[in-house]
Amino acid sequence: MPSALILIADGTEEMEFTITYDTLVRAGVKTVSAYVVEFASSNVGKGSNPPPAKCSRGMKILPDVFFDLSACGPDVYDLIVIPGGAQGAETMSNHPSVQEVIKRYIERNKLVAMICAGSYQIITSSGVHIFTPIQGSLAAKTAVLARQPLTSHPSVKAQLEHDFEYSEESVVVSDNLVTSRGPGTAFPFALTLVELLCGPEKRAEIRVPMVFPPNTPF
Amino acid sequence: MPSALILIADGTEEMEFTITYDTLVRAGVKTVSAYVVEFASSNVGKGSNPPPAKCSRGMKILPDVFFDLSACGPDVYDLIVIPGGAQGAETMSNHPSVQEVIKRYIERNKLVAMICAGSYQIITSSGVHIFTPIQGSLAAKTAVLARQPLTSHPSVKAQLEHDFEYSEESVVVSDNLVTSRGPGTAFPFALTLVELLCGPEKRAEIRVPMVFPPNTPF
Repeated sequence: MPSALILIADGTEEMEFTITYDTLVRAGVKTVSAYVVEFASSNVGKGSNPPPAKCSRGMKILPDVFFDLSACGPDVYDLIVIPGGAQGAETMSNHPSVQEVIKRYIERNKLVAMICAGSYQIITSSGVHIFTPIQGSLAAKTAVLARQPLTSHPSVKAQLEHDFEYSEESVVVSDNLVTSRGPGTAFPFALTLVELLCGPEKRAEIRVPMVFPPNTPF
Repeated sequence: MPSALILIADGTEEMEFTITYDTLVRAGVKTVSAYVVEFASSNVGKGSNPPPAKCSRGMKILPDVFFDLSACGPDVYDLIVIPGGAQGAETMSNHPSVQEVIKRYIERNKLVAMICAGSYQIITSSGVHIFTPIQGSLAAKTAVLARQPLTSHPSVKAQLEHDFEYSEESVVVSDNLVTSRGPGTAFPFALTLVELLCGPEKRAEIRVPMVFPPNTPF
């Protein structure tokens, strides 16, 4: 049975997280969510039960486990997913262990999937710095990904097109890196992950009872 | 500010719940989730903090409040949403207070929205009774809705077409009753609710940053 780890933090985009989690489970993928605490926080994975993640639109989702580098590596899972949501993605991008784990998945040729949620701006304490949620893409840069095709939320195209072969496709598969654009592309993103882990037949099989509208382009 | 109540129970379909909740919040709708306990349960809304709802694919979502007939009526909210998921919908359908509250929304001409998740079958204790998740539709029948257009998951069409004008549209609006088909129609369902509560301009405004693929038919 293939397995997947989905990161979650306070501020994660709940639709991107949920659509990916649920769709993977429908395909029979063993799916685990791991809560990433702020790196500067004193609450660094204390205890065995993580608190509810307060998501970007106020939903509270209870993660399965705390994120832990030693238990979340590519020896345990076939896929790691980084959902969007500005604050959550910032927490993940700033966490050295998340950067390290992404590097390990890439090196071990396991799947790394990143989806970028919105066009929100965070005014940071450093002044009027505009933080745009390049999310997965930020993590991608810190993990020193090679120049390759990827996509992101349109609002941060300018920050990525210099270092990567920027695409406007809804889902971009580049070797073991899978990137996508926002909540509206979360279904084709999740179905692509199912296809990569379980094959095109499984993708087709689970798609039918989800009842997409006629002429849906994925 | 318009307001919406979304019911949730153990077994609720997490994508249908989350897409509706998140999309309504993006439109500025004051959105509250209310946990429905099994009617036979001794844990009938005890205390002020509901437990996490164990959803249909294993996600745990922390509801905002317990469902309570006196606090969840059409005097408080403009819209009530019943998501899918076989077990969750069965719990809601069997709960007299849920039937009563739906009746009150209908009578007060507030919006009632129902989306039907999957094609799961539950073998009940009564033998080999096949429970198909007509979900909202079950509640609709118990709330004695007039014969009118509606839709549901395709798998239960046969159980509804006698009493209603069955439609295969992804979203059906019939006066103040809004019905839909499954997780794949949850986005157009949620966007329709935004349009009904906040107008077509708001629907168009929040749709853009969600980044649907080109040619998405909603």
